[in-house]
Amino acid sequence: MFEKELVDWIAGRTSNSKSTLIAIGDDACLLGPNDRGTVVTTDTLCDQVHFDATKHSLHRIGRKSVAISISDVLAMGAKPEQALLTFFLPKSLTMEQAQELFLGAESLASAQGVEIVGGDTNRYDGPLIVGSTLLGRVEPSKAWRIDGAQSDDAILVTGKLGGSILGKHLDFEPRSKWVQEVAAEHEIHAATDITDSLSLDLDYLLQKSNKGAEIHADQIPIAEDAITLSSQSGKSALEHALTDGEDFELVLCVSESIADELRCKFGDVVTRIGTVVSQSGLTLIDGDSRRTLQPKGYVH
Amino acid sequence: MFEKELVDWIAGRTSNSKSTLIAIGDDACLLGPNDRGTVVTTDTLCDQVHFDATKHSLHRIGRKSVAISISDVLAMGAKPEQALLTFFLPKSLTMEQAQELFLGAESLASAQGVEIVGGDTNRYDGPLIVGSTLLGRVEPSKAWRIDGAQSDDAILVTGKLGGSILGKHLDFEPRSKWVQEVAAEHEIHAATDITDSLSLDLDYLLQKSNKGAEIHADQIPIAEDAITLSSQSGKSALEHALTDGEDFELVLCVSESIADELRCKFGDVVTRIGTVVSQSGLTLIDGDSRRTLQPKGYVH
Repeated sequence: MFEKELVDWIAGRTSNSKSTLIAIGDDACLLGPNDRGTVVTTDTLCDQVHFDATKHSLHRIGRKSVAISISDVLAMGAKPEQALLTFFLPKSLTMEQAQELFLGAESLASAQGVEIVGGDTNRYDGPLIVGSTLLGRVEPSKAWRIDGAQSDDAILVTGKLGGSILGKHLDFEPRSKWVQEVAAEHEIHAATDITDSLSLDLDYLLQKSNKGAEIHADQIPIAEDAITLSSQSGKSALEHALTDGEDFELVLCVSESIADELRCKFGDVVTRIGTVVSQSGLTLIDGDSRRTLQPKGYVH
Repeated sequence: MFEKELVDWIAGRTSNSKSTLIAIGDDACLLGPNDRGTVVTTDTLCDQVHFDATKHSLHRIGRKSVAISISDVLAMGAKPEQALLTFFLPKSLTMEQAQELFLGAESLASAQGVEIVGGDTNRYDGPLIVGSTLLGRVEPSKAWRIDGAQSDDAILVTGKLGGSILGKHLDFEPRSKWVQEVAAEHEIHAATDITDSLSLDLDYLLQKSNKGAEIHADQIPIAEDAITLSSQSGKSALEHALTDGEDFELVLCVSESIADELRCKFGDVVTRIGTVVSQSGLTLIDGDSRRTLQPKGYVH
């Protein structure tokens, strides 16, 4: 894929960065050593690629533009604090509509304790583009890396997966409070958020960690919308849960004992879906059958 | 102007930010009190608005995408340190071309001591868009504010002005080393960089400071390119220097004594163009004549 190839090439050129503790390739970069654990990430959405301005309200689109970057900061175990917004507005958009876009962004930021501190606004001849840069903070030694999964770690996911295209991709609530609570008390070996799909993002995390995983088909938490969608799509609800993008839930790899603690304390949030193994690749266990799971996901 | 009206409206809604020492309205925002003087800014450029991809090389466009944000960080008297890049790439762009864009950004970042630590890349159906978020550092009490001009301050500008559309808007070198040297030793009351035009950006700084200025026509440093352009445009070279955009030079307001020191030490860089006065508005003094100068500039 073009974007991935380009990002890999860029990551190769920037890997010897002196001012970052965690650089390109994770959900966000972690500055250090002198920056008190500042995490920073940027993400941008475009009409007809990441949303549909003919169908979705500007309020929801503005909201999503901030939510996606908050999700990346949370996947680092960090506290999101400040946002900068970037708007490229088609000339047909009125002032009221532009304000509606901002109000959507502001409503989510405010609910998440994030302050909007800057940005950049342009009108032009092109599709609506909305983006956000998020700054967050984390104790550097406690940051949730993407490459820290260990053999025999339990794999947990938050929420229920699949079918987010029916609405969740716009309306999801980043689990900010929950992440702060978990981060304060529990050691997380590795984490990422689900943007491309559970199978793609978990596979990426495992590759970065030089590990593989066995996951259990009957333990994947399936969203109502995945079931709804499967009745139209001809794909199973499980397949939606494994391959749909933009769930913006978290995948966590933790020791057995931490997994037990988290499942006790947060049984309504986390589900254990499998175990990290030393051999690379994803294996899906379904009853008595075991098969290799080809990571697939949402390509915009 | 639409963008200005929208930004003013946003600034009004975000003015009571708790986590910023300097918020929307300055060249960049300054985080605090617990963020060790982190300055952050974001800026984005679009084909046919800020550059012309049919005429300008992708290397120069990539370069400019970082240079513009570095300029904003320097206008805060801060040291630029990390950059995140955002690329929206038309589908017609090849991998080699995308890499050329990155290499342009990287070459400038590297020359300026800035590390590229992250970003976001998308392919889509639309014009080429390139942006950067810059992080920098400054001792909070020493940040160059936009609203600190005092009556009787000398007004200095760096470099020579006007005609940047002939090339400087793409190829300018942000004065990073110079700014660090000045910031370390001299108190600067107010500063901004010239993006819209000398008259517009100076006027904005003075409005923010509740001041006005008298400037001297024969002291405005005029670039060769302003003279070249005036032979085609029917406008005088002085008018180009006062109203052309994207010079990316700095305007500084300092005490008389600091102005003298800076002119001695950096006579090849700074020129004194006038004096801050208590009454609002810009007055242009040209020989024996005095006239009100209507701020005008580059509207993309």
